[in-house]
Amino acid sequence: MKKILVALTLCSFTAYSQESDSLLIRKIYDEILAKGEAYKTLTHLSKQIGPRLSGSEGAAKAVQYTKKVMEEYKFDRVFLQDVMVPHWVRGAKEQAYIESGKQKVNVPIAALGGSVATPTTGIKAEVIEVKSFEELEALGTEKVKGKIVLFNRPMDPTKINTFDAYSGAVNQRGGGASQAAKYGAVGAIVRSMTTLQDDKPHTGSMRYATGVPMIPTAAISTNGANLLSKMLKENPKIQFFFKQNCETLPDAPSHNVVGEIRGSEKPDEIIVVGGHLDSWDLAEGAQDDGAGCVQSIEVLRSLKALGIKPKRTIRVVMFMNEENGLRGGTKYADLAKQNNEKHIAAIESDNGGFTPRGFGMVGTDAQISKLTKYKNLLAPYGLAEIGRGGGGADIGPLGSQGTLLIGFKPDSQRYFDFHHALSDTLEAVNERELNLGAASMAALVYLIDKYGL
Amino acid sequence: MKKILVALTLCSFTAYSQESDSLLIRKIYDEILAKGEAYKTLTHLSKQIGPRLSGSEGAAKAVQYTKKVMEEYKFDRVFLQDVMVPHWVRGAKEQAYIESGKQKVNVPIAALGGSVATPTTGIKAEVIEVKSFEELEALGTEKVKGKIVLFNRPMDPTKINTFDAYSGAVNQRGGGASQAAKYGAVGAIVRSMTTLQDDKPHTGSMRYATGVPMIPTAAISTNGANLLSKMLKENPKIQFFFKQNCETLPDAPSHNVVGEIRGSEKPDEIIVVGGHLDSWDLAEGAQDDGAGCVQSIEVLRSLKALGIKPKRTIRVVMFMNEENGLRGGTKYADLAKQNNEKHIAAIESDNGGFTPRGFGMVGTDAQISKLTKYKNLLAPYGLAEIGRGGGGADIGPLGSQGTLLIGFKPDSQRYFDFHHALSDTLEAVNERELNLGAASMAALVYLIDKYGL
Repeated sequence: MKKILVALTLCSFTAYSQESDSLLIRKIYDEILAKGEAYKTLTHLSKQIGPRLSGSEGAAKAVQYTKKVMEEYKFDRVFLQDVMVPHWVRGAKEQAYIESGKQKVNVPIAALGGSVATPTTGIKAEVIEVKSFEELEALGTEKVKGKIVLFNRPMDPTKINTFDAYSGAVNQRGGGASQAAKYGAVGAIVRSMTTLQDDKPHTGSMRYATGVPMIPTAAISTNGANLLSKMLKENPKIQFFFKQNCETLPDAPSHNVVGEIRGSEKPDEIIVVGGHLDSWDLAEGAQDDGAGCVQSIEVLRSLKALGIKPKRTIRVVMFMNEENGLRGGTKYADLAKQNNEKHIAAIESDNGGFTPRGFGMVGTDAQISKLTKYKNLLAPYGLAEIGRGGGGADIGPLGSQGTLLIGFKPDSQRYFDFHHALSDTLEAVNERELNLGAASMAALVYLIDKYGL
Repeated sequence: MKKILVALTLCSFTAYSQESDSLLIRKIYDEILAKGEAYKTLTHLSKQIGPRLSGSEGAAKAVQYTKKVMEEYKFDRVFLQDVMVPHWVRGAKEQAYIESGKQKVNVPIAALGGSVATPTTGIKAEVIEVKSFEELEALGTEKVKGKIVLFNRPMDPTKINTFDAYSGAVNQRGGGASQAAKYGAVGAIVRSMTTLQDDKPHTGSMRYATGVPMIPTAAISTNGANLLSKMLKENPKIQFFFKQNCETLPDAPSHNVVGEIRGSEKPDEIIVVGGHLDSWDLAEGAQDDGAGCVQSIEVLRSLKALGIKPKRTIRVVMFMNEENGLRGGTKYADLAKQNNEKHIAAIESDNGGFTPRGFGMVGTDAQISKLTKYKNLLAPYGLAEIGRGGGGADIGPLGSQGTLLIGFKPDSQRYFDFHHALSDTLEAVNERELNLGAASMAALVYLIDKYGL
């Protein structure tokens, strides 16, 4: 009899708890959908500040601006963490054309981040097209030497999640130049990482391998890549010219920007929610990752506005230098270790501010099963995909400290239309979608704070 | 022992069937994502033809164009169904301003479909603002007579599904004019049905009740409504002027456009997939409902391209006149009954060509539980929301014939940014999202065709 009573009590307690959580989560969504301020902050970040590549003036302004925003919200503590970051600059706009006999056709390119410049007079050479590193290896030095390699494997449009398509193509951008240099190529041109067929080059980071010459490399628009490929098939002797004068300057001082509400019961247990403040230099970085930053600030703003006093410490972190170095994420985790901080969970939003689909996690089975139990509470908000797999680049270095890493998963269909390209502007962001993402993260933070991990 | 064997056999049969279905569905998505033609068709429909209000030249061209597209795909049968439709025309662009003392502020309005014109010199009167019909009734004739009523209840931004917010506000548009006329109002101005705060009026249909005067009515942009409301609070005596010369012409001949692949085993069982070909006159009607039309054609195209020979007859129907009369949907169901056709299921896509979330159904428990069993097969494609509730306006009249009515449910967040406004153009449609919707519908058609209902 006693057992039954206990069971009933537990049962009704659980039912009550579910109901009160459900009501509280509804309040969070109401607050953010009706009174959200994320889009206003993003508007300033995009239109008044703009591009924020590590080491740039824009990045410095963004640090001060987001610090000020959080100070005005009167979070318990707002502070900067010093971090030295790579400082690569694009220089003058690139030039490129295809030369076939007397015909010259201009094509849009953008130097890849980290690339060296061409000689000031540019590079002109024959082109060899490949779809993979294996194909390049099979061609060997004999066919590649002295040429420009065109890496032209498209993102696979049949992948349902576009990040899978990106993963399947992005090694060309990151490693193409050094692979090509191994066989004596003088330059590497990489098809832009997008499923769109258009005229916008999409930049992004690349790294030189040690022991091979550093050759200049650039992204070409997908239309440009298609045209070049077509002209090559008609005449393998055509030449490609490109000129870029980017350079890597000495590392520059910068900052992670941190804001927190201190926990009332377990202040030493920290929950992080964040995005990265730096962006590529071609556009406003509104989706990548202005969205993640303003959503993270909105999580704290909304909890405070609703009078929710967290048990644990909730911290917004705007990481610096995700795009070309990950110095901010690395530094944050180093400091956490050094200061003996206990981060129980970290949520990152860096897949755009699109309609929420769920959360992908990296952690122990126990951690993950704890969160998957909240599915019923989150399903009414379209958060159906909650499970293993995901995390995020900036929070990654916390993983070795036992932190549950959680990646916010918005719908992926439009992300690579804008990613690292001129089109990543405020206009690419829908205010309701942005707000729903912030509310989804706030709801999860609320549950993790209340029940721990 | 025998029982166990039977169970094992059934089990492995089910597993095999699930696996082969899963592979086939994957092929459908591959075909449509890599080689889909829906966006190309939509481009023509939006950019070469444009607005397609019932009775207009655009509507007539769209009938001929979509018929030709399906004939070129060599569907087994392509035909038109005659239907007489309302023929309302907007006439010259509307004019409106707020007059406060010597100040005149122009505001954007658009006559509501079905409205009468103002006198050629326009109407100028004081304004009374209400948020509901109840509020209007409480004010009564004394406060309303001779005035223009501003219906200013916004769509509720806290609704997660924007169609719920629309349902909660749209009675102002449909019935506001007649409600206002009951109390002697001379005109009705309705806040646009959108959660955006901008300068675009969103038109849409309205109906006059019998027994009250037909007063002119128009949608005002949300910014315009906010301004008018603010100025009214400062000075209740301000006047509003508007002028429109829309009119309802005699009914015009038009058509539903139908294409079909005849079933190989049960040709008399028909599965319909469709959208509506008419659109409002302000823009290209790309989302509403060009998207649904081209997706429906793509369902048949893809099945044919993959060499799938359906057991049952699959029919694409592009209904005419969903926007202001539903004559096409009504006629289609009447003809189905008259011809003794057996429609087992009808799928409608009329919520935009956004990323798929699921299907909402109206039918018997048995019908619905049959389809919900396919959840596992559809979940990998983001179709998590499969259950009761939904259907569609055009397929609605088939309901009384025992047909399972299925509404395709895309993500709803952006729909009312464009709905019935100048901004509903091709640019509002993302090709991948459009294709995913077509593939989702094709997958469901494949399963219904294979297993029946």
